[in-house]
Parts: sequence; structure tokens; C-alpha cells
Amino acid sequence: MVCSRAAVFSKGGIKIRKVTLKNIIKRQEVASILGDIAPVDELVITDPGGKALIGNNNSGKPLPGCPVKLGEEVIGWVMGGEKAETLAKLLSYLAVQELEKRSLARETLEKYKEISVIYDITEKLAASLDPKQVSQLIVGEAKRLIQADNISVMVIDEDTGLYSILAASGTEYHPKIGFQPGKGIAGSIIASGKGEIVNDVISDPRYIRGTIKISSMMCAPLKIKDRVIGAINVSSAQPLNYTAEDLKILSALALQSAAAIENARLYDRLKDTFLTAVYTLAETIEKRDPYTGGHTKRVMQYSLAIGKELGLADGDMERLRLAAILHDVGKIGIRDNILLKSSKLTLEEFSLIKMHTIYGQQVLKHIKYFKDIIPGVMYHHERFDGKGYPEGLRGEEIDIIARIIAVADSYDAMTTDRPYRKGLCHEAAVEELKRCSGSQWDSDVVEAFLRIDVSQTLGGGKLYG
Amino acid sequence: MVCSRAAVFSKGGIKIRKVTLKNIIKRQEVASILGDIAPVDELVITDPGGKALIGNNNSGKPLPGCPVKLGEEVIGWVMGGEKAETLAKLLSYLAVQELEKRSLARETLEKYKEISVIYDITEKLAASLDPKQVSQLIVGEAKRLIQADNISVMVIDEDTGLYSILAASGTEYHPKIGFQPGKGIAGSIIASGKGEIVNDVISDPRYIRGTIKISSMMCAPLKIKDRVIGAINVSSAQPLNYTAEDLKILSALALQSAAAIENARLYDRLKDTFLTAVYTLAETIEKRDPYTGGHTKRVMQYSLAIGKELGLADGDMERLRLAAILHDVGKIGIRDNILLKSSKLTLEEFSLIKMHTIYGQQVLKHIKYFKDIIPGVMYHHERFDGKGYPEGLRGEEIDIIARIIAVADSYDAMTTDRPYRKGLCHEAAVEELKRCSGSQWDSDVVEAFLRIDVSQTLGGGKLYG
Repeated sequence: MVCSRAAVFSKGGIKIRKVTLKNIIKRQEVASILGDIAPVDELVITDPGGKALIGNNNSGKPLPGCPVKLGEEVIGWVMGGEKAETLAKLLSYLAVQELEKRSLARETLEKYKEISVIYDITEKLAASLDPKQVSQLIVGEAKRLIQADNISVMVIDEDTGLYSILAASGTEYHPKIGFQPGKGIAGSIIASGKGEIVNDVISDPRYIRGTIKISSMMCAPLKIKDRVIGAINVSSAQPLNYTAEDLKILSALALQSAAAIENARLYDRLKDTFLTAVYTLAETIEKRDPYTGGHTKRVMQYSLAIGKELGLADGDMERLRLAAILHDVGKIGIRDNILLKSSKLTLEEFSLIKMHTIYGQQVLKHIKYFKDIIPGVMYHHERFDGKGYPEGLRGEEIDIIARIIAVADSYDAMTTDRPYRKGLCHEAAVEELKRCSGSQWDSDVVEAFLRIDVSQTLGGGKLYG
Repeated sequence: MVCSRAAVFSKGGIKIRKVTLKNIIKRQEVASILGDIAPVDELVITDPGGKALIGNNNSGKPLPGCPVKLGEEVIGWVMGGEKAETLAKLLSYLAVQELEKRSLARETLEKYKEISVIYDITEKLAASLDPKQVSQLIVGEAKRLIQADNISVMVIDEDTGLYSILAASGTEYHPKIGFQPGKGIAGSIIASGKGEIVNDVISDPRYIRGTIKISSMMCAPLKIKDRVIGAINVSSAQPLNYTAEDLKILSALALQSAAAIENARLYDRLKDTFLTAVYTLAETIEKRDPYTGGHTKRVMQYSLAIGKELGLADGDMERLRLAAILHDVGKIGIRDNILLKSSKLTLEEFSLIKMHTIYGQQVLKHIKYFKDIIPGVMYHHERFDGKGYPEGLRGEEIDIIARIIAVADSYDAMTTDRPYRKGLCHEAAVEELKRCSGSQWDSDVVEAFLRIDVSQTLGGGKLYG
């Protein structure tokens, strides 16, 4: 695996050992060459402070000799008769070679680290299209790689133009704050599109004091080609010295993250649109029956509250939402003279009304994605005791989402005024649910419904999330 | 910019120069040290073949001396009295140092190349959610980086389980072939999930002869965590020696590509579902009027054909598609006794029918995403001369998508049987379109319609793509 070296990296920069004369001459080949060139009894090599590395220095202080230099720095001294200068020259040359090697090794390690960060984040972000989840992963990754007390992923809301925090980890986190664009250090960095290290935040004129103590920070913009969609911020409460290498790692993270966040946001928006469109069309179909205004939405909201109470899995919650929205879609097939009749229906007319469960199934079967919700729509008039329609299924033969919608639908029908009767009050409807719990309705579902606060359930604009 | 070094890389491996004695001793510091150690008049250094690099060799053949070795390889000879052996030892040591430096430099360059590939593909793939476009970008990137005659991106179709090619470039490309899973070299690599180099394809027992000549190939699986969703294949008609480094680059490309392809496929699927759902619900609403069976679909297909003929931009084509699907959604607000009346409508009844354009707008205005298609739905009964409804707009005041739907809708209405009249034949309807071109309808739109082959336009299951 390409990122197998990941384990060798930890927070902070890569350290390389200093080039010392001691390290160069301790190699056997070098020692042997030195001995060949100068007579051993004449040769003394010391470190910069005069401590003997080869030979003896009994004087206890630096001896006169030729300096071994690495650039401008003296890294040691050579004494030893006529060959001292040659040896100093040779050791200086070997020191330069060693420094070049270590610089290259350091550069290679840095690149390994960068690649490891990239592969890691790529693997973690792969095929997640949930903006919250994606940004939480990014925060976790930043936390692993960079020393910081606070980390946040900030995005620009396309509708409001404000910055909002998608995910954060830190000592004090205040989600959902809408920041003014361009304001503060992060704002200026988003506007410029260039990542920055600010190690002394307090003295930066752009700094706006917030609730979090910040001494040092870095910010890397999230960019899609040339468009900035947000930023990753890391900060420390105590003064820190963030380095160019830290910023590079943060920028690598930001580069890989930007597309993932943007894709997740696009997917989220399309999903929202899809649900809104289906909901609106379902509501439009429902509106032919003016006595049921708002029925679709209320049934959806009751159903989801029950589903949550029963601890349904995410996938079942999704099915439940769509099935609840579309449970009466089959009413499109019922003629006005029956659907809109204000007096009580005859038995024959009622048998025509019953057809809406079948019609609903006929509409939805053409949509592959909706196959899973057909049971919810088709069987929401089945009864737990098997006396319902269209198929007379009983008990757990009836899909759980249909059993839930049955309770939600019935409660809403009971509490809504109809031309031929006034709606029941909440308490009376609850009595009726209790009375027929276990016969008409699944008693587990009824109990879950009784645990929810119906008045709190209604309201809220978003169809999901 | 992090990927600024991209330009230095080309196809194939990174070459490093061989370590030669000539290159080591041509450095001034080295030459000076050598001269200090041995007397210049005694010193002769030759390359492995005996050619003098320092001093003279008039004999024309290798002289007896001490070998300079790099591992087991003799890279030259030193002659020069008693210090010859010391010099050979020193030069051997310097050669090893040089080799280590070059290996590190090579490794660093390779990592730069890998990072450059990753950043490049990340930037290119950023925020594209079209599977075709994403895979074409990947093919283009592979072409730029790896020497190959044929490159293809293959994915596993979730419905059929077959492999299909999303994009390819090469001498002979046969798109849309459904490959059996597990078959052939690529099939075995997808099954194993491990990338592979096969430089001698013909003698590989897994090879299945196809229409393309292949001598050497590489294949890297597209993986999302542990799930293989497809592969990138590159192959050459002539025998080539693909290296581990080539495979590493292809694997880096594959790793970055997999999530992009998968996200694009997920987005595509959601979009498909969305359109199918809207279409099905629109059709359901339409079905209340049994005389217009298939009207929605035909109007969409005629409209799209006209839009294509007029060269509409992608965004307008999208609007046109949705508006055509939903153009009669407002009919939900018309009561059965008028909508289904089999005799001719009175003037008052007709004025109620006209309301469907307003109702349509009222339904769609709740859906943010549908705001742009409202003009198409609301104004599809406007006339070019201003005598239409609901607002009496004229000419280019009417959105182009409404002018297109007007022609498509009218043609379909004219050629469909109604209870009170038989539908016109194609020729008669065309005559009518021509007669009122410029008055009822935009003449450019009518002309575009006349250029399309109506019978060819109908059919085809997919709602978009």
C-alpha cells in the first residue's frame, strides 16, 4: 500500500540530525582513509570546542590547526603535520556531501508525508456525499496532523453569502454562526484565496476577538479551481510557531477536501430539490381534495417522529419519509364526484376510494428508486388484525413503514374536520388509537406515537436532514 | 503553487545519470585533494577501459594499479606509487556517497512526480459530477503520463454486473461493450483488486484476444475503500517494458479517480431518479385526461429535438426538458367535468381550462430549483403575435423554452384524436404550422421543427443523457 509509511509521521516538522564531524569520521572507511593519508601519531582531530575525536588533546583547550568548515561554520579542527590542510579540505568536502544527502533525505521524507496525507484523506473521504460527515472527517484528519486546540471547516453559504461552520472541534465550539464575508483573519484569507500562518494573532490588525482564545493560527482556503468555497482554520490557545511545512500539510488537506465538500453540497442540494419536487407534486395531487389541506405534510411529520421513536435505521427512515409523502398519490385516479363528495359515501363508492392504494402502487412501480416504498403506500390501509385493504395482510406481513403511516394517517384523519363530521380533539383521537391498538393498528407503533409530543412534531420547513 | 514542478515530468521513468569516475574527479575540490595526497608526476587515474582521466597513459592499454569499485563494479583504476591504494579507497568511498545522493534525488523526484499527478488530477476532477466527463479527464491524464496506444476506464454496472467502458482513447475503440466479470486480464485484476503489469500479454493464459492489438499492458483497479468499482487499463500495440514506477503513477491516478467516478455515478443516479419521479408524477396527473395518453412524453421529445436543432445551451436544454415534462401540471386544478368533457367547451369553460397555466406556475413556485422553468410552463399558450394567454406576451418577450413547447404541444394536440374530432395526419399538421408560422408560433421554432424527423424523435426510454 502506497501510504504504508504513514505511521512514521507525527505532528510537527520532520527533524534532520545536524551534520557533525564526529558522525563523519566514525565511519570505518573514512577513518581508514584518514589514517592512510597522515601518520597516526601526528594526527589529532577535534570538535569545534577542542574535544579530541581522533588522537589526544591533553591541553584541554583548542589546539592550533586547520579548520574543517561547512559553509561559514567551523565544525572541527585538524592537526597533524604537513597533511593537516589536505585532511581539513577532505573532511570539509565530505561534510558538504553529507549535508546534501541529508537535505535530499529530508525533502524525500516531506514528500512521503505529503503523499501519505493525501492518500489518507482521499481514502477517508471516498464516496461520502454528506457535507457534515465529509467536514467532520476533515476536522479529524487536521487534528491528527497538526497541533491545534481549535479546528474548523468553514464554508460560504451560497444563498446568504455568509460563512458558516460545517464542522469544528475545539475547546469552545459555537456552531451555525453566520460570519460576515471578508471579516476577520479567515475572512481576509478566503477573500485573497491564499493560505496564511499568523503566529501572533493578537497583534494582527485583522483580528476580531471572539469567544475562543487564539494565539497562533493557520488558515487554508478551500478552492475549486479559482473559486474559494470556504476555508480550514486551525488555531492554538497558547503561542505556537506554525511553520511553512505545517501550512503545506494543511493546504494539501484543503486541496483534497474542497472537491469532496463541494460534491457533497451539490448532492445534498439535488436531494433536497428532489424531495421538494416530489413533495410539491404530491401536495398538488392532494389539493384536489380541499378538505385535506396539509394532510401530506402532517402525515410525513408524524410518521418520521414515530420512526425515530422506534429507532428505525437510516434507510428505513428514508423510505418512510418518501412513502408518507406519497401515500395518497393514487387518489389521482379517483374521480371528482367520489373524491369530493361531501355526503357519506355508499358502499360501492367506498370500494372505488379503496382503489387509491392500488393506483398508488401503479404510479410508483415505474420508478426504480421508489420500489422500496411501494409497500408503505400500498398497504397503509391494511389492519394489524388482517381486516384492512387491499390485500388483507396481517401483523408483521405488513411492512413496518405501512404500519407507521397507518397510525399517522388515521390520527390526522380523525383530528381533521370533514364536511360530514367535525374532527376529534387530540385526547379523543388518542382514546380511539388506544382502543384499537393491537386490532386495527400495531400496538408498538401506537405506543411510540403516544410517546411523541404531537404539537412539537409539526412545523419546520426542511423536508429532510 | 505546489504542482509547479509538473512541467519537468514527461512520459516514462525518471532517468538518473550513471555514477562515473570522470564525474567525481572533475570536481575542483576532489582534484585538489587528490593532488595533495599523491605527487602529480606519479598520479595516473583511468576509466575502466584504461583511458586516462588524470595524468597520461601512453601505453594505450590498462595499466596495473588499484581498482576503484562501486559495489562489485570496477569504475576505474589508480596508479601512483605508494598512495595509489589510499586514493582508490577514497574514490570508492566518494562514488558510494554520490550513488546514495543520486538515489535520494531520484526518489525525491519520483515523489514530486506522484504529487504532481495527484494535484493535477484533483484539480481537473474537482466538482465535476458527470461520469462521462470525469472518465474522459482520467483518460486524458493517463495519456499525458503513460506511453500507451489504448487507454480505457472500465466500470462495473451495478444493475447488470457487467463491465462497461465509460471512456477510452486508442486506435480502435468499441464503446458500450458489456464484458463478463472476471474474464480476461482486466477481469482478473478487478477481481483481485491488485494492479498489475503484463509486459508480455500474448503469453498470459488469462488473455482473451480482442479487436485491438495488445502486446504490453497495465491495469490499476478503481477502489473505494475495499470495494472495486472498475479499472483503468493502458496498453501498447508494440511490446513495451512498463516499470513499477509506471504502475505507481497509474495507481495514484486510479486512487484519485475512483471517488470522483463513484460520486459522479451516485449524482447521476439521483438525477435520473429525480427526473423519473417528476416525469411519472406529471404523467400521473396527465392521465386524468385519458384522451392525452403519452402526450407528456411526446411533447418532451419534440421539444428536446427542436432545442437541439436550435443549438440551445446545456442549461436551457435542462430547463426545456423539465418545463416540457411539467407543462400541463396545472391541469390538476381543473375539475373533471371540464377536463373530461367530451363535447365542445363553452367560452366560459374554456376560460377555466386556460387557468391551468396559472395553476402550473402556482405549483412550481414553491420549488426553488424549478423557478427557471416557470416561464416555460406558464407561457406555453402565449402566441408570437401577442394573442395568446395568460398574459398576452409577444415575440421574444416569451421565453424561448415556452415558444418551443408551444410548437411541440400544438403539433401533438393536432395529430392526436379527441372525442370531438379525429387527429390530423402529419402533413396536414405541418401545413397548419406553416400557415401560422410568425403569427401563432415563432417562425424560427417552426422551421427547426420542420427540419427534424418526427418519427425518429419518438421512442427511447431514458429521460436524459
